[in-house]
Amino acid sequence: MRDALVVFTPSGKRGRVPVGTPVLTAARQLGVDLDSVCGGRGICSRCQITPGSGQFAKHGVHVADGALSDWNAVEQRYKDKRGLIDGRRLGCQAQIMGDVVIDVPPESQVHRQVVRKAATARTVIMDPATRLYLVEVSEPDMHEPSGDFERLAEALRTQWDIPEITAGLDVLRKLQPALRAGAWQVTVALHNDHRPGPHRVLDIWPGMYEGGLYGLAIDLGSTTIAAHLCDLRTGEVLASEGVMNPQIRFGEDLMSRVSYAMMNPGGDVEMTRAVREGLDSLTRAISDTAGITAREIVEAVIVCNPVMHHLLLGIDPVELGQAPFALATSEALNFGARDLSLWGMNPAARIYMLPCIAGHVGADAAAVALAESPETSDDLVLVIDVGTNAEILLGDRRRVLACSSPTGPAFEGAQISAGQRAAPGAIERVEIDPVTKEPRFRIIGCDLWSDEPGFAAASAASGITGICGSGIIEAVAEMRMAGLVDRSGLIGGPDQTGTWRCQPEGRTHAYLVHDASGTGGPRIAVTQGDIRAIQLAKSALYAGARLLMDEIGTDRVDRVVLAGAFGAHISPKHAMVLGMIPDARLDKVTSAGNAAGTGARIALCSRAARAGIEATVRRIHKIETAIEPRFQEHFVAASALPHATDPFPELAQVVTLPDVSFNTGGGTHDGTRRRRRRG
Amino acid sequence: MRDALVVFTPSGKRGRVPVGTPVLTAARQLGVDLDSVCGGRGICSRCQITPGSGQFAKHGVHVADGALSDWNAVEQRYKDKRGLIDGRRLGCQAQIMGDVVIDVPPESQVHRQVVRKAATARTVIMDPATRLYLVEVSEPDMHEPSGDFERLAEALRTQWDIPEITAGLDVLRKLQPALRAGAWQVTVALHNDHRPGPHRVLDIWPGMYEGGLYGLAIDLGSTTIAAHLCDLRTGEVLASEGVMNPQIRFGEDLMSRVSYAMMNPGGDVEMTRAVREGLDSLTRAISDTAGITAREIVEAVIVCNPVMHHLLLGIDPVELGQAPFALATSEALNFGARDLSLWGMNPAARIYMLPCIAGHVGADAAAVALAESPETSDDLVLVIDVGTNAEILLGDRRRVLACSSPTGPAFEGAQISAGQRAAPGAIERVEIDPVTKEPRFRIIGCDLWSDEPGFAAASAASGITGICGSGIIEAVAEMRMAGLVDRSGLIGGPDQTGTWRCQPEGRTHAYLVHDASGTGGPRIAVTQGDIRAIQLAKSALYAGARLLMDEIGTDRVDRVVLAGAFGAHISPKHAMVLGMIPDARLDKVTSAGNAAGTGARIALCSRAARAGIEATVRRIHKIETAIEPRFQEHFVAASALPHATDPFPELAQVVTLPDVSFNTGGGTHDGTRRRRRRG
Repeated sequence: MRDALVVFTPSGKRGRVPVGTPVLTAARQLGVDLDSVCGGRGICSRCQITPGSGQFAKHGVHVADGALSDWNAVEQRYKDKRGLIDGRRLGCQAQIMGDVVIDVPPESQVHRQVVRKAATARTVIMDPATRLYLVEVSEPDMHEPSGDFERLAEALRTQWDIPEITAGLDVLRKLQPALRAGAWQVTVALHNDHRPGPHRVLDIWPGMYEGGLYGLAIDLGSTTIAAHLCDLRTGEVLASEGVMNPQIRFGEDLMSRVSYAMMNPGGDVEMTRAVREGLDSLTRAISDTAGITAREIVEAVIVCNPVMHHLLLGIDPVELGQAPFALATSEALNFGARDLSLWGMNPAARIYMLPCIAGHVGADAAAVALAESPETSDDLVLVIDVGTNAEILLGDRRRVLACSSPTGPAFEGAQISAGQRAAPGAIERVEIDPVTKEPRFRIIGCDLWSDEPGFAAASAASGITGICGSGIIEAVAEMRMAGLVDRSGLIGGPDQTGTWRCQPEGRTHAYLVHDASGTGGPRIAVTQGDIRAIQLAKSALYAGARLLMDEIGTDRVDRVVLAGAFGAHISPKHAMVLGMIPDARLDKVTSAGNAAGTGARIALCSRAARAGIEATVRRIHKIETAIEPRFQEHFVAASALPHATDPFPELAQVVTLPDVSFNTGGGTHDGTRRRRRRG
Repeated sequence: MRDALVVFTPSGKRGRVPVGTPVLTAARQLGVDLDSVCGGRGICSRCQITPGSGQFAKHGVHVADGALSDWNAVEQRYKDKRGLIDGRRLGCQAQIMGDVVIDVPPESQVHRQVVRKAATARTVIMDPATRLYLVEVSEPDMHEPSGDFERLAEALRTQWDIPEITAGLDVLRKLQPALRAGAWQVTVALHNDHRPGPHRVLDIWPGMYEGGLYGLAIDLGSTTIAAHLCDLRTGEVLASEGVMNPQIRFGEDLMSRVSYAMMNPGGDVEMTRAVREGLDSLTRAISDTAGITAREIVEAVIVCNPVMHHLLLGIDPVELGQAPFALATSEALNFGARDLSLWGMNPAARIYMLPCIAGHVGADAAAVALAESPETSDDLVLVIDVGTNAEILLGDRRRVLACSSPTGPAFEGAQISAGQRAAPGAIERVEIDPVTKEPRFRIIGCDLWSDEPGFAAASAASGITGICGSGIIEAVAEMRMAGLVDRSGLIGGPDQTGTWRCQPEGRTHAYLVHDASGTGGPRIAVTQGDIRAIQLAKSALYAGARLLMDEIGTDRVDRVVLAGAFGAHISPKHAMVLGMIPDARLDKVTSAGNAAGTGARIALCSRAARAGIEATVRRIHKIETAIEPRFQEHFVAASALPHATDPFPELAQVVTLPDVSFNTGGGTHDGTRRRRRRG
């Protein structure tokens, strides 16, 4: 039999095949990644390819006319019915008749790349746990009786090399009608995690299933629940939504929820119900937005902190509220959506939860690790996910450490006198003129600075309502740089600072940023208490990072990644002025956006990523800050505000530098006296 | 180090161990079956042994005093608290100090034998899927954080060689409180089917669990649901209960239920709910009887016919009502009690369903095969489970065939003029004097024959209410032997038979067995219609058996086993006179009682039995009677009633023998004329 040379692009894989071989068959023989759901029956059109013609010097091939078999009736029917781009052929229909170069377009590749848009581009190869397969099942034979399910298993074995399947009763219920409606052809959605075990039939449809197959990547935070709806074939995000976590009513932060569970019998059950209802309504909302049905959602990946993790699973989080902070379970979990009473998805949908790293370092931190992969970094990277608890990862390809640090809610605008959540009207950027000591600011929802023409009109809709987390960080840093605050964190009076804006407030002072009280609006100032709250939070954050640096034995990190919605809005310069984060070159401080959500999306698209992060988490070295005496030392040492003129101050240097200093006249400054380090 | 010879009885296993070795350790090293739940901690007392003393010629050992270490405080504490038979020691406490013979009493053996009481004794070795293990779990360590579940898994790995565990959310919820309440000692119930895969934690208790661990063996029939409650440690049956299948209201027999599902949208869902509720109330009833709690029931094995199988699982049985009678699934199933909404058991309880053999030959037939194991029989055995459908197995160690035969409900007393279910007052035994043609009978609930003194008084409570399945079989056979019925099945008139009891009824005759109509009681007669119904039923049964015999190429079977509650009451002699069953020596016709229920019990006690029956069922050759032309031939040929004087007539001989024959005067005898074989 004559044979022909076939070269596939972009893979470059090549080989000789007998003349008459279908392109799909050749692709499989040569290990080329060419998709097919129908297994070559000319139904699914997933195997579209584009044949080349003419001279391909690079591949040493001249493609003559007639290198593929003629356009056939199956292709014409498909084109008439559903359309086919000109020049495209169905790989299962077109046969190789002579030497040919064949291009596999990205949408015909099963394992196409999903490239993140972020600066630190990370390539994810599509390899989802759930995929569709069309199979032809043999009809029942009274002489060799066997169940329809057993014949389906046999068909998947012979037609798709799938060794073993299993299914729940829901699927068994649909099986017989589907097989008969599809004239013994059915499409099945098979789920196979990276762990050994049978493929699980999640759903079944008569004939070729033309609907969608989606997954949810869910970042379940203490305050908000955010989800991306992803196409499990392409990795594309169809819709993103967020809702408030209904558990908010049981306490703003995690520890107050743990307390609620401890103080109220059945309190954990109430909170479990609340968060599941929240997830369910989010699922319904995102389905409505995207215009898809519940049945099309066959998977979800959920990342969250340990307390949310336990409350979602229905486990009393009481042990997480006290040393030794024991998790009920730390490994990755794979279970049914029904186990969580999530009814907005396919009844057989599977839930994957990333592993927890430690009692205070949850699956959300694992997701950040998955998104940022410090374990593959050549340089030493510090990844900080800032929230009520900061999760901190430090490492490179040799070793990764993790801890969490109880920063408290100050970075989120809570416990700040004029603080508020990041929402339109909130001050998010602040600058203070070092000479005039006058502030200017920007609010969320308005692109103008407050001293720019048109600001009043532009901000009229939202008003100027308060100051959010990133705003307070900039305000404190700018105050420090403008000499309004000394290194101990004390705000000077008008005599010392030379500005009327530093006004007495009780026995301390406050810096007035904005005053609309004359017209019934808010009066926004940074008080001494605000500075103390930020000092506590940033000291905790810094101390956590330092602890990990001590463990690795370094004084500097090569780069810093700020993760989390909040992290995306922090000004690296101001963070470093404040001493929130250890020294690094300013251009080496980047934001990763919602890295936890990204990690969830990656786990949704890739089984290999799941296996990878499970292995990584096992290798991550955990440091428990709560029991580490050096954490307290670092915490106390870090309370000072480094000097403004030193661009990348090391804390050790700061305390020896000349600095402004105010005589406080003997007033007590609670929370500072014990912690202030005397130079 | 000095060592000593130890011989274990009854196993005879022996070996030398270092002096000071605990008996339990020695037993494990020598592969002796000695139970332990606590792993040698002196808590569970499962490892009780009896040391011998003196000369053991058989074993060549002389046991000196002091061959075991002294009685210790742990043993004394156990004895004080819970009692210990004199002479018994705890195997984990007593150390071997010199040559010794040690007896392991049956209750200390894990894999003790459970011997059936039936004649064809079958030995089952206890090897249940669910067992208890006491483990000591290491406490959480903040420096090496891991989940409590992961440390439980580690403990089971190191202390019990259990490689991998899994658990549902219910168990995860109980885990942390149990570990702390038990001071890091917990008892877990682990379930491991014979298939590869992790052990599943079904439940967890603090410390040493002292409660029970039970399983249900359920025979789910179309009419009744019967269950045995078994101790999973000993195999002992604690209680047996039966309830009516609530599906009865949707149709008496299976096909009418299939029709109900076909004619009424949602009808299958109604029937599913009904049977699950029935199972649930049975579970609660049997728990009440035995005085145990729902949580103690951790397993159930269910056997049933294919229609009940599908309805229980929530699968529309419509395909089972029409050729090719395709099962949705035929393999054995293992799933959660929750999937069936069975709330009367432990929430994590596992349900095992035996495989179905074919569309008409269900898991009940598989259970009969498991109980009777024709595949290990040296001689050719015919096993018949008589019911509305008869399941028939024929084979020996070379080959086993199976079919089902639609006998209809006549054998259960339905469609019989004076028929009734087997209940007190029903005639179950009949004899007719060949000379006087006078009947005598016995009723259920009374040991006297009707012509014996005292019968009237003894039967007064129940009355004489009708005739049950075994009664009608005897009546017809006795009528045949007394010459009241010819070989075609025609009842003779009084002139022909010489008895007034053969009274005209329409155009045919009926034989009066009992008449209490004068006192307002019933008039019980065997009508021509009754004979026809029995002829149809027995022909179907016989034809099914013949079909299998044809397939094997034999005219005779070595033995016949009648299974089922009804099978236990059939008189083998009368069955053979009727031609219900093929010829066999009368002493080779035995009853197996409720073999399906026994099979369920065996599967509950033994994982090996599950593996075995699954393999056996795959090898059983199925014959579908509905499409087999020879079935019709055999059916027609079998309608005649063999001659009374031939003890074991072959049908082929019967038609050539001289026989009574009545001239019917040209009357039509519907159902006979076509089928009667002219000699």
